[in-house]
Amino acid sequence: MNLEEVEISSKHIFSGRIVDLSVRTVKLPNGETSTREIVQHRPAAGVIAINDQQQMLLVKQWREPIKQITLEIPAGLIDETDASPLDAIKRELNEEGGYKADYWEEVSQFYSSVGFSDEKMYLYYCDTLTKLTEKRSLDEDEFLTAEWYSLDDLKKLLSEGKIIDAKTVFAITFWENMLLTGTKNMSE
Amino acid sequence: MNLEEVEISSKHIFSGRIVDLSVRTVKLPNGETSTREIVQHRPAAGVIAINDQQQMLLVKQWREPIKQITLEIPAGLIDETDASPLDAIKRELNEEGGYKADYWEEVSQFYSSVGFSDEKMYLYYCDTLTKLTEKRSLDEDEFLTAEWYSLDDLKKLLSEGKIIDAKTVFAITFWENMLLTGTKNMSE
Repeated sequence: MNLEEVEISSKHIFSGRIVDLSVRTVKLPNGETSTREIVQHRPAAGVIAINDQQQMLLVKQWREPIKQITLEIPAGLIDETDASPLDAIKRELNEEGGYKADYWEEVSQFYSSVGFSDEKMYLYYCDTLTKLTEKRSLDEDEFLTAEWYSLDDLKKLLSEGKIIDAKTVFAITFWENMLLTGTKNMSE
Repeated sequence: MNLEEVEISSKHIFSGRIVDLSVRTVKLPNGETSTREIVQHRPAAGVIAINDQQQMLLVKQWREPIKQITLEIPAGLIDETDASPLDAIKRELNEEGGYKADYWEEVSQFYSSVGFSDEKMYLYYCDTLTKLTEKRSLDEDEFLTAEWYSLDDLKKLLSEGKIIDAKTVFAITFWENMLLTGTKNMSE
């Protein structure tokens, strides 16, 4: 069965600091046409950072789209100055947590919400952390606090509906699987 | 530490079939102002549907934002006619897969990408499936095929980078976690 849609035209609606919006007209597999609203967004990187006490680093911050303070794994947009997604997340771990890590592994790459957006997330695992004596500054409009949580704490917070960010819900489940199976890589 | 931002004003940019875009001016915790680009999106529901052969149902479909065919768990927007998220996903399992299920459990609720969007996903688990002799029609602009995959198949597809949809990467990890721990609910 042919599933492919073919772009006929694209109408640009908005270019912002973070998102770009356009409406594409596509030819459907049955020859009819439809429109697709597309939000373009720079790729991002996140990290499951685990300390020697087997705790995960989470940051607390205000998220205006849902008007709530969330608990999330450290993450951020990949800048043009970042040589790679791994470089970007090392910078974020420094800025948001004040840590560097000696052991790094890629966990997964995924698109956050493929129905309407092209935002891609590169997710890493790291451990063997060192607290930095001088950490990088946060972005000018970024305010957050960083805290450590055990797996039991995290499962309790999940059950209470206090962790509601998709990548963080995934990160906790992935970390639990790592501990259960003794592996770090998803494909093992 | 105060983390809260306060909305000062909001400029509406676009209202579409699927997304609404606005740019909000907010007062930051330090008293300065900044802007936040907000994509509003209806909530959605998805399902980890497992058959008697211990296989998961995935659907193959074109995703115009990334111009690729993806493999995803059955999912869809919650309509105004749906009495609940569970009602919505039962409808999607019928439309996209042609199945009904006797056992249902809520797995998680999360926001897909809280940095720029309010899209919320309600994720369910179901098993004890029955193939329907007459299934509901797909939406007019929806084209997909449904197939079953074992956990081994899914882990291979993940390792090959052939499953790239966030909720589906999570669904597979969650299902593996269920099988490892013998539990269905994340908080157990």
